[in-house]
Amino acid sequence: MSTYTEYLTIQTNKEKEIINITNKIQQAINKSKIKEGIILINSMHIISSVFINDEESGLKQDFLEWLEELAPYKPFPSPKGYHHHQTGEINGDAHLKRTIMGREVLCAITQGQLDFGPWEQIFYGEFDGQRPKKILIKIIGEK
Amino acid sequence: MSTYTEYLTIQTNKEKEIINITNKIQQAINKSKIKEGIILINSMHIISSVFINDEESGLKQDFLEWLEELAPYKPFPSPKGYHHHQTGEINGDAHLKRTIMGREVLCAITQGQLDFGPWEQIFYGEFDGQRPKKILIKIIGEK
Amino acid sequence: MSTYTEYLTIQTNKEKEIINITNKIQQAINKSKIKEGIILINSMHIISSVFINDEESGLKQDFLEWLEELAPYKPFPSPKGYHHHQTGEINGDAHLKRTIMGREVLCAITQGQLDFGPWEQIFYGEFDGQRPKKILIKIIGEK
Repeated sequence: MSTYTEYLTIQTNKEKEIINITNKIQQAINKSKIKEGIILINSMHIISSVFINDEESGLKQDFLEWLEELAPYKPFPSPKGYHHHQTGEINGDAHLKRTIMGREVLCAITQGQLDFGPWEQIFYGEFDGQRPKKILIKIIGEK
Repeated sequence: MSTYTEYLTIQTNKEKEIINITNKIQQAINKSKIKEGIILINSMHIISSVFINDEESGLKQDFLEWLEELAPYKPFPSPKGYHHHQTGEINGDAHLKRTIMGREVLCAITQGQLDFGPWEQIFYGEFDGQRPKKILIKIIGEK
Repeated sequence: MSTYTEYLTIQTNKEKEIINITNKIQQAINKSKIKEGIILINSMHIISSVFINDEESGLKQDFLEWLEELAPYKPFPSPKGYHHHQTGEINGDAHLKRTIMGREVLCAITQGQLDFGPWEQIFYGEFDGQRPKKILIKIIGEK
């Protein structure tokens, strides 16, 4: 059994942004030389996500607009703001948005490749960005 | 360490449907002969889910109605439709519904069995079906 | 390759409550003596969650209020109650709330420690509690 650990650093241009990281994940698998196993990819922050969906610009916009409906930004101070904002933070919505989209994905590695369906792509979803953030990659399997 | 890979094919009768796949997953574990480890089960599509909940027909209906509230179907063309529909697709809602329900589950295998609580059952949740779809099973552990 | 299995029992004081279990998870890693690998932590019930976010009391309150908006409690009997309530259960909302928050988390173990970002903490989210509930811990990796 082999294990491999890598940390990606990402800084988004926008406060809220969805970035395709599939190529970087396949590169990590290549570096690990692991042929059969699994790969965990997770945000190391509690205001961003790693998730799998389709690479399509309209869909990425739909995700951001939909998340704004389900978990809206609320300015601070506000009588109807999030309790979390009493700490001085104003990113309560980012904690909730990340919850909808998920913290992590786990993927199969088969014959040294991400074992994916035809449309599966891996994304980093940032909800309070413009600062350097880390993504953890952990692979376990056999070379 | 041993690994085992299997692909299930499922075609639902309805466009949106929830199907219990627990028996098929336990059969894969039996075939793998792995006694201690973990099993990843994921949809290979970005419009369907694998998730764990209770086998109860009313609850399955609740899930579908609730998802329709949180991520409604929107006809195309429409001024308020999803951006994704500009590609010609009309399944924007399915991408969002699948996000709520999740892409994958990871389960423990103990003594050759799914290590489950009394009510845990594994489901495939289809949100744009009536076509053949694939579920990936990856097991890693010890025989 | 080594594996380690442990079951935690938790009984919340309140019907709906969020409890930090990070220390208990690190203790299980210590007991397992596994230095490199992964750890699965999942609720063994279909009305509660294991998830990762920030240890901040206001945020925990925000989560519970937000879940009540997205998946409200509905009394039984009611013409607009959940179908699930026809079984005699009245916890339909708990099944939906748990779905938003997730059943499980998978974390990396590096050098014998939870490989976490600065704010990551593991929580058990109970949505129909005041009874003993079980959390499964499964670790696989190398000592």
